[in-house]
Amino acid sequence: MRDLLGLAPGSLFDLDAVDPAARPGFTHGKKRARAEVLALGGRFGELHTRLHAAGKGGARDRLLLLVQGTDCSGKDGIARHVMRLFEPMWLHYAAFDKPTDEERRHHFLWRIRRQLPEAGQIAMHNRSHYEDVLVARVHNLVPEAIWQKRYSEINLFEKRLTDDGLRLVKVMLHISADEQRTRLQARLTDPAKRWKYNPGDVDERPFWPAYKAAYEAALAQCSTAAAPWFVVPADHKWYRDWAVAHLVLEALEEMDPQYPPPDFDVAAERARLEGSA
Amino acid sequence: MRDLLGLAPGSLFDLDAVDPAARPGFTHGKKRARAEVLALGGRFGELHTRLHAAGKGGARDRLLLLVQGTDCSGKDGIARHVMRLFEPMWLHYAAFDKPTDEERRHHFLWRIRRQLPEAGQIAMHNRSHYEDVLVARVHNLVPEAIWQKRYSEINLFEKRLTDDGLRLVKVMLHISADEQRTRLQARLTDPAKRWKYNPGDVDERPFWPAYKAAYEAALAQCSTAAAPWFVVPADHKWYRDWAVAHLVLEALEEMDPQYPPPDFDVAAERARLEGSA
Repeated sequence: MRDLLGLAPGSLFDLDAVDPAARPGFTHGKKRARAEVLALGGRFGELHTRLHAAGKGGARDRLLLLVQGTDCSGKDGIARHVMRLFEPMWLHYAAFDKPTDEERRHHFLWRIRRQLPEAGQIAMHNRSHYEDVLVARVHNLVPEAIWQKRYSEINLFEKRLTDDGLRLVKVMLHISADEQRTRLQARLTDPAKRWKYNPGDVDERPFWPAYKAAYEAALAQCSTAAAPWFVVPADHKWYRDWAVAHLVLEALEEMDPQYPPPDFDVAAERARLEGSA
Repeated sequence: MRDLLGLAPGSLFDLDAVDPAARPGFTHGKKRARAEVLALGGRFGELHTRLHAAGKGGARDRLLLLVQGTDCSGKDGIARHVMRLFEPMWLHYAAFDKPTDEERRHHFLWRIRRQLPEAGQIAMHNRSHYEDVLVARVHNLVPEAIWQKRYSEINLFEKRLTDDGLRLVKVMLHISADEQRTRLQARLTDPAKRWKYNPGDVDERPFWPAYKAAYEAALAQCSTAAAPWFVVPADHKWYRDWAVAHLVLEALEEMDPQYPPPDFDVAAERARLEGSA
């Protein structure tokens, strides 16, 4: 999946060239995709257990899945369907909404640093530090000189993390404006979805072209060798989940975490245990 | 399950009267139990979503599953098999190990308060404030006068939480000393389980009768109307998971969280959405 969805470092990028309804790497339909994702549970469980065990043994390896995308693009769906495959004990989840007053008084990376995974954990960030070059840029929340220098700050930040054993999987969920409207309509219609509806989401729709430009800049400037961006066509929810699950799986398999050797004498412990009451 | 496994407030209690291999309320076997737990995923997902939505609407309802039990009793198994049924986004998990230096400088409830669920969340505490009347009592970590007064401190603490919308489900996993030995042996034998082996667990086995007395005191003194204890026979892992899943399900169904009414004009929003680009 990495080769199909990943962006080369520094590549100029036109989001319009990616069909939001495409399914790169998958030729089957919804039912098969859902079944394949569920079937990954056992493999994910084993890899996560190894990652945690390695952390207990002193390794610093950890994984962060960072998910960006416009409203209704399916960030919560990833939490629901992909994060569920991991062990709840060693999972860390954080969503980054409009900064609080406290967060605003700090550097934009402050709140991110507080939510990074510990050694052995898998984390998901639902939105991220990229909000500070997306909404901040689109709505001029800070002067251009400020957001312009954030791209290199982000690259440095991410480089330090990946050098320190954090595997970073950055995913942009790409949907069409029409699909967004359909999903917002569903939220208005279905009483079980209405609580998710936010009138502010409609206010943002006229800014679609501005967000497109902001995403393209972030994707181009912050796709690095250490932490490339992946653009996942997300009009099909089942493809979205399938693709992200496989991106995480590939990352974990490449990390290939190993159980640590015992730090005790196995034979002696066995004897001691037999002798106990 | 509540009637089968719950303790009446203030009841004197003999743990030996509970067969750790029993399966109250369930007459089938392992396969059926595992399937029934998995099948609860949809119901749990809906209840959890309602709970979260109600919290967004201003309700303070939240649920804390507190799990105690000796080493190898299956606390991690509950996290694995039961917590997995919930939505990772609105889940909070905390394990309480030997207190850190910082935690030791605070009141014993300080570290617990920092890990309580927020409105709309479901949390699990793997071990809890009860450690401070269990290991603290068994090993005289504090003078008797201190641990003796903790029972009433705990009751007051839990009463305040439950009065404030927190539903507390307290579960003690009850295994036999033989079953513990078998599980420790498995950890020594299976290279994929060895990282879980802790030589300290064997050191604790001679204290089994002291722990039994400490558990009986905690169960008797802290089974309150607001927060009763449940003793779950746990020699069968599949029964343990089935029983705890049903205890949580019963609690959530009794809480019966509801979607909040919309705080916007649905028809007006629909028109505004249609008119957007």
